[in-house]
Amino acid sequence: MVIREHYLEASRRILERCEQLAAISALPDGILRTYLSNEQARANALVASWMEEAGMTTWADPVGNQWGRYEGTSEDAPALIIGSHLDTVPYAGRYDGILGVLAGIELVSELSQAGQRLPFAIEVVGFGDEEGTRFGTTLIGSKALAGGWQAEWLTLQDKQEISLYSALKAYGLDPEQCSQAALDPTRVIGYWEMHIEQGPVLEAEEFPVGVVTGIAGARRAKIRLTGQAGHSGTTPMHLRRDALAGAAEITVAVEQIARRIEGDVVATVGQLFARPGAVNVIAGDAILSLDVRSQSDKVRDLTLEAINDAAEAIVARRQLQISWNHTHSAEAVLCNNQYQSLFGEAIESVSQRKLKPKFLPSGAGHDAMAMAAICPVGMLFLRSPGGISHHPDEGVIPEDVALALAVFSEALRNYAASYSPA
Amino acid sequence: MVIREHYLEASRRILERCEQLAAISALPDGILRTYLSNEQARANALVASWMEEAGMTTWADPVGNQWGRYEGTSEDAPALIIGSHLDTVPYAGRYDGILGVLAGIELVSELSQAGQRLPFAIEVVGFGDEEGTRFGTTLIGSKALAGGWQAEWLTLQDKQEISLYSALKAYGLDPEQCSQAALDPTRVIGYWEMHIEQGPVLEAEEFPVGVVTGIAGARRAKIRLTGQAGHSGTTPMHLRRDALAGAAEITVAVEQIARRIEGDVVATVGQLFARPGAVNVIAGDAILSLDVRSQSDKVRDLTLEAINDAAEAIVARRQLQISWNHTHSAEAVLCNNQYQSLFGEAIESVSQRKLKPKFLPSGAGHDAMAMAAICPVGMLFLRSPGGISHHPDEGVIPEDVALALAVFSEALRNYAASYSPA
Repeated sequence: MVIREHYLEASRRILERCEQLAAISALPDGILRTYLSNEQARANALVASWMEEAGMTTWADPVGNQWGRYEGTSEDAPALIIGSHLDTVPYAGRYDGILGVLAGIELVSELSQAGQRLPFAIEVVGFGDEEGTRFGTTLIGSKALAGGWQAEWLTLQDKQEISLYSALKAYGLDPEQCSQAALDPTRVIGYWEMHIEQGPVLEAEEFPVGVVTGIAGARRAKIRLTGQAGHSGTTPMHLRRDALAGAAEITVAVEQIARRIEGDVVATVGQLFARPGAVNVIAGDAILSLDVRSQSDKVRDLTLEAINDAAEAIVARRQLQISWNHTHSAEAVLCNNQYQSLFGEAIESVSQRKLKPKFLPSGAGHDAMAMAAICPVGMLFLRSPGGISHHPDEGVIPEDVALALAVFSEALRNYAASYSPA
Repeated sequence: MVIREHYLEASRRILERCEQLAAISALPDGILRTYLSNEQARANALVASWMEEAGMTTWADPVGNQWGRYEGTSEDAPALIIGSHLDTVPYAGRYDGILGVLAGIELVSELSQAGQRLPFAIEVVGFGDEEGTRFGTTLIGSKALAGGWQAEWLTLQDKQEISLYSALKAYGLDPEQCSQAALDPTRVIGYWEMHIEQGPVLEAEEFPVGVVTGIAGARRAKIRLTGQAGHSGTTPMHLRRDALAGAAEITVAVEQIARRIEGDVVATVGQLFARPGAVNVIAGDAILSLDVRSQSDKVRDLTLEAINDAAEAIVARRQLQISWNHTHSAEAVLCNNQYQSLFGEAIESVSQRKLKPKFLPSGAGHDAMAMAAICPVGMLFLRSPGGISHHPDEGVIPEDVALALAVFSEALRNYAASYSPA
């Protein structure tokens, strides 16, 4: 497979810019950029300079997202938005989010250097908050664009007890104007996002990139089991009501059910607490967390039902009490079929048919989830070496970045060719 | 079954005395008497007064155990020791340990009121430390008698950082003399202990009392599993190395193996910790505790081997690493066969053959464990309502106490009849 030198050079520039952004951090020994911080302001200024260099006009919106616009053949045409987020978790990697913003800039740069205009404008966005690191609420940047700004967020506080209201003021924004960040849906034709996979699938199956079919819906619960505490020496096995053993059996069942069910469903017990939690006491109480995700809300809910049935049988046999606390529920978002086809065909054509497109769901949430409320969305994943993200060891393979750029560029050209304004 | 009024009256007196001792506590809202405390001194003085009332001479030994002696037919005859402990856990019940001391006093009272002397002396002992509540080391009282006093214990500290050395001095004892508490084994013919079961077996099988066959040996370990932490949304089931799921599968296997193996073995996972322990992260590390007990060291070790084999198969299939930290090992102690027969026959005869003797192992440790190093030991259990102990709800049934006294009295008489001095 031969990747055009143009994209290899663009890939090198992106990775070099990722390093420059990594240096803008609130931590001396790692990467941290949070919403409305000095680091956001510095990073946005640097990104804006790259946008302008690529031929875009730039601005910040009322919630602090960084924007650049490259006009289409006619002024004021509706825009295809390409982007991702510029904020990070603590001790983050260099690519999560950032790569998608820099890729958008490279695509515009390619067009502007060739003097090409498309029948729509391209807007590149760098969201100020996706991770929720500072105020606990994720996707503030993209939710605000999609008309989901909530005034009650203004009272959220960070660890220094600075409210979001005060943080907006200190950043030079007007808290009263945040809802004005909402886009007019008639001015947006779609949203494309390039992102690292943050999982092991593409690497395991040896695909450099993958077309995202949808973003999984998630349901979470805390399950509490109550049995009878007892002395580990004096209580024979047949007279026990061991809450921890029951929780362990449910944990094994959760895994078996998720493996058995067809499709992409994943189910995880990540927390398990036993009380009193002493080496010589049979646990009388146990709490376990459950996280179930699927691109199909139906499959997800069927999985949850199967887990519920298995748990009921387990606690009945063991004479335990069970109670469920459903803590979270989010519906799945499907990626637009036309975008999936465009990306898939582009993968075949830029690889000279050496690569078949790999389609996969996203188990993690992304800005595209929020944008789906106002426009069709498309996502392209890059393989994550070791499946690692949210960690300094997070990586990308330079050739994968070049390929992903070539794929987006090809898809963009084909999209423009088939595009007819509404 | 008719229990003689004498024993019913003695039972009432014992329960009344248990209440009096319960009032001697370091806690305003529960029972707590620790080693070398003011409460021990007050409880020992009260118990000594009851011993004297029953016709005994009394003294305290170099480690603070309370003694009473009722001479046999000849002065200075070797003694059968009857007793248990007077110390408690925090928020304890009224009977654990205490009952065995008061029972010894009643048996002597019965003999002395009848003017009867046996071919051996009877010594009643109330141990000052069995629970280890204050200094963390259990069975200090009985181990000291059995020649197991260790000078290094003097440096042990309680929560107020008072050393055992200082506590002995403050109590009026000489730390240099503690090893002198060791008994001359030729002066001891055996040790009998009456104790609540602290478990559910006798109640479940409807036996008021049971003959203890031995005290289980225990082995304990911490098992650590290492897998690969990962995102709960982005890591498909087949690419996971989930340490918590592995720990759960081992926990289920521990229970299955203990149920499958013939005999009295019990195996318990009482602690399970998963790291990082977040709802949306697959656990990369998990630690579980293991406690395996059996009256047969061989069965216990075979069980541990079977658990080890199962765990090895589980971690191999799951591609996890495993490491074992063996934290504790105690050999089982068998109760003397002659004593078991004496108690069993007494149960049949005092119940006019309405009760068959129930033989059962003790899964919990007792002073008899330490005493077994210097003499044959025998134990009689009373059923524990609800299996509850180490809790204010710990109970005994008054008729069971009367029956147990009658059994010990009958066994004592038969033992004396068959006794020939060495």
